[in-house]
Amino acid sequence: MNNLLIIGGSDAGISTALRARELRPEVEVTMVVADHYPNYSICGIPYYLSREVEFPEDLAHRKTADIEDAGIRLLLGHRAERVDPPSRTVAVRDERGQLKTLEYDGLILGTGAVSVKPGIPGLDLPGVFTLRWMGDTLAVERLLDEKRPESATIIGGGYIGMEMAEALTNRGLAITVIEYAETVMTTLDPDLGQRVTERLAGAGVRVVNGVGVEAIEQAGDRLTVKGSGGFRHVSEMVLTVVGARPMTDLATSAGLDTGITGAIKVNRRMETNIPDIFAAGDCVETWHRLLNAYAYMPLGTTAHKQGRIAGENAVGGGREFAGCVGTQVVKVFDLVAARTGFHDADARQAGYAPLSVDTETWDHKVCYPGATPMLIRVTGDRTTGRLLGAQIIGQHGAEISKRIDIFATALFHRMDVEALNHLDLSYTPPLSSPWDPVQISAQNWLRKAEQTK
Amino acid sequence: MNNLLIIGGSDAGISTALRARELRPEVEVTMVVADHYPNYSICGIPYYLSREVEFPEDLAHRKTADIEDAGIRLLLGHRAERVDPPSRTVAVRDERGQLKTLEYDGLILGTGAVSVKPGIPGLDLPGVFTLRWMGDTLAVERLLDEKRPESATIIGGGYIGMEMAEALTNRGLAITVIEYAETVMTTLDPDLGQRVTERLAGAGVRVVNGVGVEAIEQAGDRLTVKGSGGFRHVSEMVLTVVGARPMTDLATSAGLDTGITGAIKVNRRMETNIPDIFAAGDCVETWHRLLNAYAYMPLGTTAHKQGRIAGENAVGGGREFAGCVGTQVVKVFDLVAARTGFHDADARQAGYAPLSVDTETWDHKVCYPGATPMLIRVTGDRTTGRLLGAQIIGQHGAEISKRIDIFATALFHRMDVEALNHLDLSYTPPLSSPWDPVQISAQNWLRKAEQTK
Repeated sequence: MNNLLIIGGSDAGISTALRARELRPEVEVTMVVADHYPNYSICGIPYYLSREVEFPEDLAHRKTADIEDAGIRLLLGHRAERVDPPSRTVAVRDERGQLKTLEYDGLILGTGAVSVKPGIPGLDLPGVFTLRWMGDTLAVERLLDEKRPESATIIGGGYIGMEMAEALTNRGLAITVIEYAETVMTTLDPDLGQRVTERLAGAGVRVVNGVGVEAIEQAGDRLTVKGSGGFRHVSEMVLTVVGARPMTDLATSAGLDTGITGAIKVNRRMETNIPDIFAAGDCVETWHRLLNAYAYMPLGTTAHKQGRIAGENAVGGGREFAGCVGTQVVKVFDLVAARTGFHDADARQAGYAPLSVDTETWDHKVCYPGATPMLIRVTGDRTTGRLLGAQIIGQHGAEISKRIDIFATALFHRMDVEALNHLDLSYTPPLSSPWDPVQISAQNWLRKAEQTK
Repeated sequence: MNNLLIIGGSDAGISTALRARELRPEVEVTMVVADHYPNYSICGIPYYLSREVEFPEDLAHRKTADIEDAGIRLLLGHRAERVDPPSRTVAVRDERGQLKTLEYDGLILGTGAVSVKPGIPGLDLPGVFTLRWMGDTLAVERLLDEKRPESATIIGGGYIGMEMAEALTNRGLAITVIEYAETVMTTLDPDLGQRVTERLAGAGVRVVNGVGVEAIEQAGDRLTVKGSGGFRHVSEMVLTVVGARPMTDLATSAGLDTGITGAIKVNRRMETNIPDIFAAGDCVETWHRLLNAYAYMPLGTTAHKQGRIAGENAVGGGREFAGCVGTQVVKVFDLVAARTGFHDADARQAGYAPLSVDTETWDHKVCYPGATPMLIRVTGDRTTGRLLGAQIIGQHGAEISKRIDIFATALFHRMDVEALNHLDLSYTPPLSSPWDPVQISAQNWLRKAEQTK
């Protein structure tokens, strides 16, 4: 292994490259990046558009110079067109249309995902955007800056939809969110999604649920979003943020297998079905530690982990990806909502006998100023007592994010709900209580499980 | 088991009582409390004296009525004088001097700890206090309120010393802290203790290290603290907060064994050497999960856990205390310092080959406003790669407390440092980075361990 070629310069690609160089500094690493923004943070886009992040280049986890200083050769503005496994080559085309052939000893595909485009007319109209690449981001910013729209419609009530609703509200636009499901944030239970809706409403954001968008039409500067049941909404800008699907054209044309979600099939060593070709990040299926099965989980945290594994194994290691447990967090204005593991519905689907119990508690001793309430929903298996998941919703500043991580770490170790009580967690009155909220909610679950036996 | 008698109304006692009643509501539970403040938070005292907590009764985790509503019979103002195991009785004396004999089927000692009093003259002078009971607290408040002192000396640079330095600074007093050791906060490594000192200095608190206090002398309203090396310091008030020792007179007179720390000897079921007598909280030795040995760890979190185990086992259960891992956190002004597990020195003492590696990192993506730096020190075993402990110091609001809990949960499961990278932790730019600081510090440790092999 002398020459590692990486297609894609986002989280998975960079993690792979850094890990390979760390373990084997003599290996030549070349990274092919389609645009000129390697290693930028997709998750950061809403915060640039909200103007909380001042310069677009600040969205990069690492600057180009940092990447090159780590000994990684960057080919920016190069698009990989074809992988030929028998000759171990990849054909790439630069921005002037020149085709080059790159050889590899080891190849990593970190091609990422693309925004899902709903099959409706009007997506290509001016003022209608998807949001994934820096190109998208800069186009949105240009419109905001030049046309100063007063209203925007966001199609999709997921993480990015929520963050963009906040971002554009903060820039003074009147925002309407349209979500096909009965609540926004379908990664949470519906009633918790409803709490997010209420927080949005408090900030003046209108949320419309249960409407399927059918078309976008333009009349001058006005864009009309038409939906099911005669729905009509007019605004000056439309963002379509309805999810991501794996970008696998290059992989499938090279003969790589894909899994049931359409993502590249990998084993837990991040190997594909073709020798010396690895894949990681938003383009692959992800091992889910609780499901004991693969799922599609396009997240930056997972991409980093998988990239690190791929980088290690590409240079001769033998490490396995331990699997995700479904941990996510979002901040919407001053509300933080986090989840890990299963909720009731998907636990039942996975064959468990779930019980979910709510606990309303304070983030720290209520006698100390500034205590805020949070709702913790613990899901566990009635039969075995095993912890299956948790959801927390509360105020920014209440350490909700790292509290879900205590649950996530417990899930990683397949703990019982009872065992949470044995964790030696930190306490001082301004920051917690002698039983942390995590444990208070566990005890509440145990009581309810006992009562409903 | 019909009749459970509990001596002591603080964390261990209440946890025992609640757990016993929860599992066996038919069991009669009587709780003997020496004063009139059951279940108040010792950890909360500094926040009452700082006036952040308005009323002293708010320091109670539960009000008297709540405790009685849970079916617990309270004997306030009763002091247990003698336990007679053969007859299963306890002699208690009320405040009028009346002696009563109480019978028990099961007895729990939750007698707690007393403030260590250094063997120096002057501790009984007016204006000189220890701080553990509500009586102490109210006496301090009375002096602050009536005499309005302008200066105070705090002997002891531990948790309570730090919190009282903040509390009394916030009330406008000029504070001097005297600590015998070379730094304050000896539960942290010395250089981290030094950071706490610097934060105190920034708030105008003077810290004197390396001085052994030899006497306190009074002249009018002025108290002079005299120490080694000719040290002299004059102030209007002195607090002596140099630790706690287990209160075991009742136990030893009843024939209960004590351990090497002088605390009541218990097994992991919280049983003493005499049948049907359990003990929990600050009066007992505590099983340390990493040491695989007993230690003295008088903490509210531990007392609650031990009480819960004692309560369960007293009514017929068979659960074991899983052991503490040494987790603690303190807030000093806007600084938060947390620790869990071993540091270098005690890891070496415990037979490990420790390596401690520092990482300075941000609590969240630095491009998002409000990011603050934190120092994470990871200690692991060079030979096995096992995680041994962590210390974190940084700003209030940076989720330091719950980040140390991720380490604590990892320690509970005896994880390797490498395995921290596999945890599926939550991320959004305002709250973390794709690798959480916990994981960034783990990777840094692994790099250093590799380099220094």
